[in-house]
Amino acid sequence: MEYAVRGTVVIAADRINDELKAEQSMGAESKYKFQKIIYTNIGNPQSVGQQPLTWPRQVLALIDLPDEEGINHPNIQNIFPSDAIARARTIKIGLGGNGSGAYSHSKGIKMFREDVCTFLQNRDGIDVPTDVENIFLSNGASAAIFNLLTSLIADNKCGIMIPIPQYPIYSASVEQLGGQKVGYYLDEKNKWNLSIDELERSLKEALENGTNVVAFVLINPGNPTGAVLTKQTVQDVVKFCSKHNLVLLADEVYQENVYNEQDKFYSCKRAAYDCGLLETNSIELASFHSTSKGVFGECGRRGGYMELTGFDENIKNQLYKLASASLCSTVNGQCMTSLMCRGPSPDDVSYESHEKEKLDIFNSLKKRSKIVNDGLNSIDGFSCQPAQGAMYCFPSIDNMPMKAINEAAEQNITPDTLYALSLLERTGICVVPASGFGQRPGRYGFRTTFLPSEDDMAYSVNAMKDHHKEFCQKYA
Amino acid sequence: MEYAVRGTVVIAADRINDELKAEQSMGAESKYKFQKIIYTNIGNPQSVGQQPLTWPRQVLALIDLPDEEGINHPNIQNIFPSDAIARARTIKIGLGGNGSGAYSHSKGIKMFREDVCTFLQNRDGIDVPTDVENIFLSNGASAAIFNLLTSLIADNKCGIMIPIPQYPIYSASVEQLGGQKVGYYLDEKNKWNLSIDELERSLKEALENGTNVVAFVLINPGNPTGAVLTKQTVQDVVKFCSKHNLVLLADEVYQENVYNEQDKFYSCKRAAYDCGLLETNSIELASFHSTSKGVFGECGRRGGYMELTGFDENIKNQLYKLASASLCSTVNGQCMTSLMCRGPSPDDVSYESHEKEKLDIFNSLKKRSKIVNDGLNSIDGFSCQPAQGAMYCFPSIDNMPMKAINEAAEQNITPDTLYALSLLERTGICVVPASGFGQRPGRYGFRTTFLPSEDDMAYSVNAMKDHHKEFCQKYA
Repeated sequence: MEYAVRGTVVIAADRINDELKAEQSMGAESKYKFQKIIYTNIGNPQSVGQQPLTWPRQVLALIDLPDEEGINHPNIQNIFPSDAIARARTIKIGLGGNGSGAYSHSKGIKMFREDVCTFLQNRDGIDVPTDVENIFLSNGASAAIFNLLTSLIADNKCGIMIPIPQYPIYSASVEQLGGQKVGYYLDEKNKWNLSIDELERSLKEALENGTNVVAFVLINPGNPTGAVLTKQTVQDVVKFCSKHNLVLLADEVYQENVYNEQDKFYSCKRAAYDCGLLETNSIELASFHSTSKGVFGECGRRGGYMELTGFDENIKNQLYKLASASLCSTVNGQCMTSLMCRGPSPDDVSYESHEKEKLDIFNSLKKRSKIVNDGLNSIDGFSCQPAQGAMYCFPSIDNMPMKAINEAAEQNITPDTLYALSLLERTGICVVPASGFGQRPGRYGFRTTFLPSEDDMAYSVNAMKDHHKEFCQKYA
Repeated sequence: MEYAVRGTVVIAADRINDELKAEQSMGAESKYKFQKIIYTNIGNPQSVGQQPLTWPRQVLALIDLPDEEGINHPNIQNIFPSDAIARARTIKIGLGGNGSGAYSHSKGIKMFREDVCTFLQNRDGIDVPTDVENIFLSNGASAAIFNLLTSLIADNKCGIMIPIPQYPIYSASVEQLGGQKVGYYLDEKNKWNLSIDELERSLKEALENGTNVVAFVLINPGNPTGAVLTKQTVQDVVKFCSKHNLVLLADEVYQENVYNEQDKFYSCKRAAYDCGLLETNSIELASFHSTSKGVFGECGRRGGYMELTGFDENIKNQLYKLASASLCSTVNGQCMTSLMCRGPSPDDVSYESHEKEKLDIFNSLKKRSKIVNDGLNSIDGFSCQPAQGAMYCFPSIDNMPMKAINEAAEQNITPDTLYALSLLERTGICVVPASGFGQRPGRYGFRTTFLPSEDDMAYSVNAMKDHHKEFCQKYA
C-alpha cells in the first residue's frame, strides 16, 4: 500500500527540513540553495499560512470550557461576541448535558446531523426531505469512505471503479480491503472531463475479467485534476450508476472550491433528483463532505459527514456497526461540521466579519490558482489544464528526457519521482509525483497545491521554470 | 460483526429514552415504572455527570482561539489562569505556526509525542530511553489497535490470542480483518486472573488446528473484569509472548483506575525490562493508552497513543503508512493526550486545584466501585469478583432459570440478552449482556459500569435486586 501525498518525496522533504533547521540553529553554511521547504504536497491550508475563521473557533472554545469558566463567566462578554456565546449555549443544550468530552451517538450528535440536513436541503433545493438517520458524522471524509468501502468489498472479486488520476485513499483502501481496482481514464485534453464511453469500456473489460463491479467513485470537483464537471456529465454518471446497479460514492469535499461563475457545483444528489432516480428509488448514493477543505481548511479538526441516499437497511445497519466499533467520531470535529453547515445568522453581530473572512480566503485561493496555472503553462514543455476547482494543479511534463526515464528505471522509481526529488533538492519545493495518483502510461507530471502564500507561489513557479531547464540539460 | 456495548440492548434503551421524553413533553402518563434510563453500558464518564477537569479544557480553548482573540487578547487574564495561557503559548509554538486546524505529522505532533515519552519514562523509571519515533498518537486507543491488527493479520490463518471475557474491539476487528480469534479463559474464581497453563493450552490447540498465532492481547486492568494483574502474572505473560514470538498488545487504558493501595499498576514494558527482554531485544510490545478513561474521562476527544517497543522497521513503516491513509489523528485529541501526560507544574497556580479535581474523581470512582460491587454480591443468586480496577463490575447470575434459557432459545437470543432486556424494561437500567464479551459456556451475567452518580448507583443496585427476584419468579 502506498500513500503518495505522504510518500517518498515528502519523507525526503521532512529530512531536508530538519537539516535546514539544524544548519540554521548552528549558524552553519547551508548545502542547499534555499532557506525553507515549500510544502505543496497536501491540501493543508492552515499549515501554509491560512488563518482560521474567527467565529467558529470562538464557539468551539466556549463549548470546551466548563460553563462557569466559559458561557456563565461574568467577564465572558469582554472577550467573546454575543452570538458565539449564544450558539455555544444552544450547542451545549443540544449535547444533552454531556458536553464535548463524552462519546456521542456513533452516527454523531443528532443536533449536528440536523444542521447537515438543513444545509443539504438549502444547497440542493429539492422537495425530497433529508433524513437525519442517513447522516453519519465522521473523522474527516476519509473514515467514512473507508467504512463504506469495507461494507461494499465482500471478497476479492468485488471491484470499485476509480478515476485515473484519483486521490490515493481509494486505491490504498481497495488494496487494503482486498478488492479490485477498476480504473477509468479521465480525458486530460478535455479539461479532465469523463466520458460515458470510457466508463462503459472500463466496466465491460472488468466484467469480462470476472470482476463483480459493485461501486463507482466520482470526485467532483476533481482531485488531483481541479476539474469541475458539468451538469450534463454529472447526470450521465448518476444514470450510468443506476443502469448498472453501482453504488455511487460522490466525493464532493471541494464543493465550495469552484472558482469561476460559470462552473457552478452540481451535486450528485441533485442530479439524481433531476433525473427522476430519487423518486423511483433507483440509485444508491453516498456523498462525502469535510471541514478540511472549502474556506474552513480545518484539516486537523477531522470533521466530516457522509449522506446515504437510497441504501437498504442492511447496509445502513452494517455501517452503523462499523461506526460503533470506533465508538464515535471526534466531537470537536462534529462541532466544526455543524458550524460549517450553519454559520451566524444575518442579524448576528459576527455575520458580516465571518462572511468577509470567508470571501477573502476564497478570493485569494482563486487568485493563487490563476498564478500557478498560468505560471505552469508558461514553462516550455509543461501543459496544465485549468484549475477550475479544488486546490490543485496537475501539469503534464511533455518533454521528459529519455535519459531521465532510463535513470529512474535503474533506481527502480518512476520518472516523475526522480523529477520531484530533483525539484525538491534544487528548489525546496515539495510536490507529489503524478504516478502517485495514476495516469496514462507514458505520461509524466506532478500535483502541486496552490495553497502557500502568493509570494511563495510566485517564487515556486519561477523556480520550477529554472529547474525544468536545468533538469532537461542534465539528462539531455 | 457485533459490538455489544452499542448493541441490541442499547438500541432498545435509546428507543425507550425517546418514548419517555415524548411522554414527558406531552404530560402523558408513562407506560414505564421509571423516569429515565440509567446508562451503565459504556465507560463514558462525562455522559453520566462527571465534570471535565478545568485546566486542560482552558488550555484547549486557548489553543483553538486565534491569538488576537485568545492568548494575546488584552483581557484574557480576567478569564484564564496564567499557567493555562503560558501552556497554550508553548503549545502554539510547538505546533510550528500551524495551529490546531492543520493536519499534523501522521504519527502526531512531535512535541506531544515527547510529552508521552517523558510520561512513560517517569511511570516506568527504567534506564531504556523512550524513542519519540515509536509513539503514534491515535483517535482513542481504538484506531491504533485496529491499525496494528491490520498490519498483523496477513491472511485467514493468522490468529490473535484474546482473553475470554474481552472488550469487543478485539473480536470485532479480528473478524472484520478475516483473522482467527484464539480465546484463552480468565479464571473467574481467582479474581479473573490468568494462568500460563491456560495460555499454553489455548496456544497448543490453535497450532494443532493449523492457526498461525501471531499476537497476544492482554487487557490490564481488565475490561470487563475489573481485575488488576500482579507483577508476577504480567512477567509470566511477557515471558510467554517472548518464548512463542507473539506480538504483545498491552491494552493499558485503565492504568490510572486502580483502587487499592496494594494493587499497583505494573506495565508490560516495565515487566519486559525487569525480565531482561528489552536488553536482549526479544519481545515485540505495543502498549495503548487513552484520554477516555483514567480521571480525565475525555471520551469525545478521541485522544490516545500507542508505544511500540522492539518492532522491526518494516512493520513500523507499514504502520506509518496506515496512519498516513487517515492523514492524522484529531489534533484536539492529541492536545488532550499531551495535557494528560504533562499537567501543570507544582509551582503553577492551577496545580493544586487540578490535583484536587483529579483526586476527587478518583475517590468517588473508588467509592462507587465498592457500592456496586457490594450491592451485586448482596443479591441472592449473583456473584461478583472485586472491581480492583477499570470502571466495571461483571457479575455472574448463578441461578438463571431453565425456563428463561428455553425462552431465549425460542427468541434466538442469548439468555443474558433476555435478562438484560427484562432489566431494562422493568427498571430503566441499561447493562450489556455478558455474552457480548465472551464467557464460559453455561455462564450468564452482564457488565455494568459504576459511573453514574452515587444516588443512581444505589437505586440501580436495589432495582437489580428486586428485578432478579421478579425475573426468577416469572420463569420459575
